[in-house]
Amino acid sequence: MEAMIESFSGIPAGANQSPHTLTIRFDAEVDRVVIIDQTRLPHECVEVELKTSADACHAISSMQVRGAPLIGVTAAFGVYLGLRGKDDETARSLSASVIEALAATRPTAINLRWALDKIETRLARCEKNLAEIALQAALELHAEDINACAMLGEYGAQRLQEIWEAKGERAAQAGLPAPESLNVLTHCNAGALATVDWGTALAVIYKAQARAIPLHVWVDETRPRNQGASLTCWELGQRGVPHTLIVDNAGGHLMQHGLIDCCVVGSDRTTLLGDVCNKIGTYLKALAAADNGIPFYVALPVSSIDFSLREGLTEIPIEERAAEEVSHISGLDDEGRVSRVQLAPTGTAVSNYGFDVTPARLVSGLITERGIIDADEAALTKLRDSIA
Amino acid sequence: MEAMIESFSGIPAGANQSPHTLTIRFDAEVDRVVIIDQTRLPHECVEVELKTSADACHAISSMQVRGAPLIGVTAAFGVYLGLRGKDDETARSLSASVIEALAATRPTAINLRWALDKIETRLARCEKNLAEIALQAALELHAEDINACAMLGEYGAQRLQEIWEAKGERAAQAGLPAPESLNVLTHCNAGALATVDWGTALAVIYKAQARAIPLHVWVDETRPRNQGASLTCWELGQRGVPHTLIVDNAGGHLMQHGLIDCCVVGSDRTTLLGDVCNKIGTYLKALAAADNGIPFYVALPVSSIDFSLREGLTEIPIEERAAEEVSHISGLDDEGRVSRVQLAPTGTAVSNYGFDVTPARLVSGLITERGIIDADEAALTKLRDSIA
Repeated sequence: MEAMIESFSGIPAGANQSPHTLTIRFDAEVDRVVIIDQTRLPHECVEVELKTSADACHAISSMQVRGAPLIGVTAAFGVYLGLRGKDDETARSLSASVIEALAATRPTAINLRWALDKIETRLARCEKNLAEIALQAALELHAEDINACAMLGEYGAQRLQEIWEAKGERAAQAGLPAPESLNVLTHCNAGALATVDWGTALAVIYKAQARAIPLHVWVDETRPRNQGASLTCWELGQRGVPHTLIVDNAGGHLMQHGLIDCCVVGSDRTTLLGDVCNKIGTYLKALAAADNGIPFYVALPVSSIDFSLREGLTEIPIEERAAEEVSHISGLDDEGRVSRVQLAPTGTAVSNYGFDVTPARLVSGLITERGIIDADEAALTKLRDSIA
Repeated sequence: MEAMIESFSGIPAGANQSPHTLTIRFDAEVDRVVIIDQTRLPHECVEVELKTSADACHAISSMQVRGAPLIGVTAAFGVYLGLRGKDDETARSLSASVIEALAATRPTAINLRWALDKIETRLARCEKNLAEIALQAALELHAEDINACAMLGEYGAQRLQEIWEAKGERAAQAGLPAPESLNVLTHCNAGALATVDWGTALAVIYKAQARAIPLHVWVDETRPRNQGASLTCWELGQRGVPHTLIVDNAGGHLMQHGLIDCCVVGSDRTTLLGDVCNKIGTYLKALAAADNGIPFYVALPVSSIDFSLREGLTEIPIEERAAEEVSHISGLDDEGRVSRVQLAPTGTAVSNYGFDVTPARLVSGLITERGIIDADEAALTKLRDSIA
């Protein structure tokens, strides 16, 4: 069941909802959970229905949906789909295995576990209407995610505005012309497509765009799955944000030459000490930012902080993915069809870690829906205690 | 004019020549200059003849040949091809424009200018037989390159042996089992395919292999042109060196987890202060090596040092290449044909710098045919004065 989306503006804007198709949505009138199949972007924008809990598992593990916040919300709807149409006794006996299967789809993003724990707690407290309760919980997570992203975007945009104003002042003091743009580098896709709406790193961009800061975004292509080239470029193009695609190797050179003013990335899991686990390669950009005195911000909803862990490097499980993601790549061929080509010699051994950990010492600040905080134990402990 | 090479072992081994087809060779009996067309590797190994100086220009600019040392030698043969069959008066009047066209093919590698200067000087000193003199100079450069690479390989292998022995001692002191392998990361292709034979960084590997050090090489795929995935993996496979392909994003993570013992890369141009210009992304790996206390060596023939420059970051011209190298990629399709696919949304703006500069402070040493020297002004001045 799929439908081509003709334009990326199907849904009326709510309070915090941007005027674009949501990455995942529930159509209450016909009881359908619908996602954008991100494996087909940027060449096709296709919506598919998730009909079963197994569909939700497949969507997460095959990366039709990806991004820590979106994985969490999708898993929540997956619980509902697993219990839908079952009587309460059956639903009760099924719920543990449904949740277990969803939890096993991907190991690194903490939101997955966080969302499932929330639903599990809710189900444990209730006697009846379990499917309805799971749906209600999923819808709440869905709404909360939109609001959290919109809010952290505002905090981040305020910081970008300060950086932009400081850049203008430096130019004026040096007797140089006013700068043309604020150049922000991002890695992977921490955009609307990684959440329900707005995104995390890109929420900061979109909210800064709304303040009329003249932005230009450097987009890391983000091998091996090229979420930067395929998803971030597409999303920024849809929303009219000027951007330039670069290979992952290029960011250091651009920073050395003053072509990047700030880095903003997302996070799949952040620890109590402020270590940030994000898409493989993030650490290299953080090193280059530190070496060149460039602010390096991480934008994340509080739901992606794992307060139970301290050291990111030793404690966060890093997903290893299939060799084919490195040895082969998909794109649009000369006849306009999506096809796959082999890059390396046949039989070449491949290693494919999905994430790395950026130590807190390299992070300028964590942009959350509760404000921008330092990436250190004191600030994170305070945040943890404030929401306990 | 091309010929499929059936095996990679056509030519008898000379003193310093490895038992493999040379990347560029002159067949004196039939007066032919022949190269391996590297744009068709790893899926096909094809030799093509360079018949004219324009063929040599095309081979360099289209990257049928690439790698600083090989570019220099190819340009030298290009001068010969431009003068071949001409009487001396015509050859004299042509030589400046032939050299100028070859010099303009690529801006970053200094060997190109260095080789052409050598020939130009030689031609200026002679009255007659200019074509013959150009050929003789090219053949000398060809032989010198093989010898330089073999020698720097020996120096580097000695250093790897020391690192390997130290690794064993550390394990023994910690009561751990003896290590299984010495893990070396390399970026791009600084192999036999980047030179006439042996390579620079990979000469170190091959000479270490000959010492029976149990090596394992992590190969950065090296976007955008994937010289690591396509050339280094192919070359290491041909020579039986265990290796694993990774995306450029992965090296930092591997270093954080103790999976890399040493980095060895090549250089397109090195300055008097020891700054190293090499394939884009090298700087990011050097930062990660420094952050994790891992030695970072650069292997290079003295011909690639530009003693006339001091600061790499401000003085070395960095080539910008076509957007299509980033937005599109070639590989083997399902039917076994080499075909190209588009990765980014149509019309996406792309930036494509070919090289970056690693500051001397991040370089553990320069491995040259004259020994391993510090990457600093004192050592490089001494080297310069010793060869003046």
